[in-house]
Amino acid sequence: MRVEIGEQPAALRRTLDVLLPRVPELAAFAGRSRQVLFVARGSSDNAARYGRYLCEAWAGRLATPASPSIATIYRRRLDLAGVLAVGLSQSGRTEEIVATLDWARDCGAATVAITNEAGSPLADTADAALVTEAGPERALPATKTYTAQLAALAVLGLALGPDGAAAAGLRAAEFRAALRRAPDATEALLESAPAAEELAAELAGVRGMVVSGRGYASSTAFELALKLQEACYLNATGLSYADLLHGPIAVVGPDTPTLLVAAGSGPTLLGVVRLAGQVRASGARAYGIGGTELAAACDRALPGPALPEELAPLALVVPGQLVVEALSRRLGIDPDTPRGLHKITQTDPG
Amino acid sequence: MRVEIGEQPAALRRTLDVLLPRVPELAAFAGRSRQVLFVARGSSDNAARYGRYLCEAWAGRLATPASPSIATIYRRRLDLAGVLAVGLSQSGRTEEIVATLDWARDCGAATVAITNEAGSPLADTADAALVTEAGPERALPATKTYTAQLAALAVLGLALGPDGAAAAGLRAAEFRAALRRAPDATEALLESAPAAEELAAELAGVRGMVVSGRGYASSTAFELALKLQEACYLNATGLSYADLLHGPIAVVGPDTPTLLVAAGSGPTLLGVVRLAGQVRASGARAYGIGGTELAAACDRALPGPALPEELAPLALVVPGQLVVEALSRRLGIDPDTPRGLHKITQTDPG
Repeated sequence: MRVEIGEQPAALRRTLDVLLPRVPELAAFAGRSRQVLFVARGSSDNAARYGRYLCEAWAGRLATPASPSIATIYRRRLDLAGVLAVGLSQSGRTEEIVATLDWARDCGAATVAITNEAGSPLADTADAALVTEAGPERALPATKTYTAQLAALAVLGLALGPDGAAAAGLRAAEFRAALRRAPDATEALLESAPAAEELAAELAGVRGMVVSGRGYASSTAFELALKLQEACYLNATGLSYADLLHGPIAVVGPDTPTLLVAAGSGPTLLGVVRLAGQVRASGARAYGIGGTELAAACDRALPGPALPEELAPLALVVPGQLVVEALSRRLGIDPDTPRGLHKITQTDPG
Repeated sequence: MRVEIGEQPAALRRTLDVLLPRVPELAAFAGRSRQVLFVARGSSDNAARYGRYLCEAWAGRLATPASPSIATIYRRRLDLAGVLAVGLSQSGRTEEIVATLDWARDCGAATVAITNEAGSPLADTADAALVTEAGPERALPATKTYTAQLAALAVLGLALGPDGAAAAGLRAAEFRAALRRAPDATEALLESAPAAEELAAELAGVRGMVVSGRGYASSTAFELALKLQEACYLNATGLSYADLLHGPIAVVGPDTPTLLVAAGSGPTLLGVVRLAGQVRASGARAYGIGGTELAAACDRALPGPALPEELAPLALVVPGQLVVEALSRRLGIDPDTPRGLHKITQTDPG
């Protein structure tokens, strides 16, 4: 896992080199879609959460997370004419995801696969396949295949974006330039490994953890919570900070700290900085991954990337991955092969 | 909280008496909508999760959970023509929800409010208001206002349902008859209070808890996890069982048991029963709320309602509410006024 965390800058560079030239083709194929449906589970679903914010806040199209059971258990047809269905699976072999993307096409959707495996069932069944170039991932917890998915989603966002981008702050040319900088930004954050070890030492005795962010960065919060569950067996909960304030903030306390993630700028930053203050006022520790404003509000913080909010998630997750990997080892777990995790998950065997 | 849990049969009867006669009016207003957008936070968002399955699996219409930040933080317009936007807030006064429903109307959606407060800002701003008749709720954790929301959603489902219901198993007349039985089914489950006390005694020392279900009943799982966070300060995670199998199953173990919820019949039951076996094989306790098949697979179980899967969530939550209330008292918390919870939550103060 540690090696693969370090391979992310190269994985992102290769993926962007292959996928960015396909923006015109994707724009012609997907640009007329009224809205987007994401089909994914696990860390791919956390990537899809980033995709949903890209589609809505940046490209101005409604985005929906699919409930695969509608296709595979309830076997119900929906009218998906005008919908772009995007299926995400790192292996491309999770049967439930392949079946749900097939169902979406049968219901009238145009289909796109985002997978790390060319020739996989998911890549083969979709109308268009965005194959990421992360290379083989041997550790069970996804790291480089996850960030490569985010890069593919950013390329898809660029293809969907132009006609609505003017209203969203970041122009298409700025978005593309920032996306090109993401591999370097990721590389810079690998230097936080010693600080991640120190943070992991502080976390070794906690009972649980709440990981929170908002908007684009909520994808990072959910992904890090999942990684803490998978690789550290920790009762970690990922929450939008808005949902956290609706009751669950009661769980934070001396033995349940909070990890807050935020881009260094953008309209969600102020709320996350304030949340750090609320967490500390309740007697809990607040850890941060982000810029200087967030760091100043937290007990301890790791630096985030110098990227605009729309692209920060591609790198913001990296210091958190380093913390998870260090904490897993410290807890006596092998982070490459934690219990309960499989590369290809079959939801409904038999 | 305990008193209000007991008031649910009467709250459901009053709500159905007032709302069921409005099905024809709602069908005329909402029946032509292509799809549904739910706007909610906290326990109202768990009710909306039930609404999403009703819309998709029963009424055959795509359902999307709104990201309020698109409206209130990113201030981005989406094309919502042909969309029915349903805003849920027990108080009707959560500004973020009111603002997001206003935004949805501005974007072209028809709007419905589901709230317990006639004359509230949410009721006033919507094109149509379904006002539940739960009566004043004094305990901070929502119980009777939550199940009354589910009843209102079932009424809305009935209004949306007819043209597609033939494909979904349960016919409209059967759905309506089962909905009419829901108050009695809820009343019968109040008798599980002593068994709920016993289960709470077993849970008093746990570090965390995973609450899981699938399809319609996943709403119950998320709601009970939220209640355990709010009223018991427990690191509880609500998960679809499909997501649980994608890694987070690693967190269950001797000090993190699993609570599984399922209707007594339906196509999701087999998977939940199997999950109970997987949980126990991993050395963790599996508790259940449901029918005899689930009970046989669990270490300990409370009975669920004699209702079809499509309506079971209206009553399935009740034994769990009793467990939460009993556990809260046992932990020395006042379940009526736990820390961190407010009747009207403002997400972005100032």
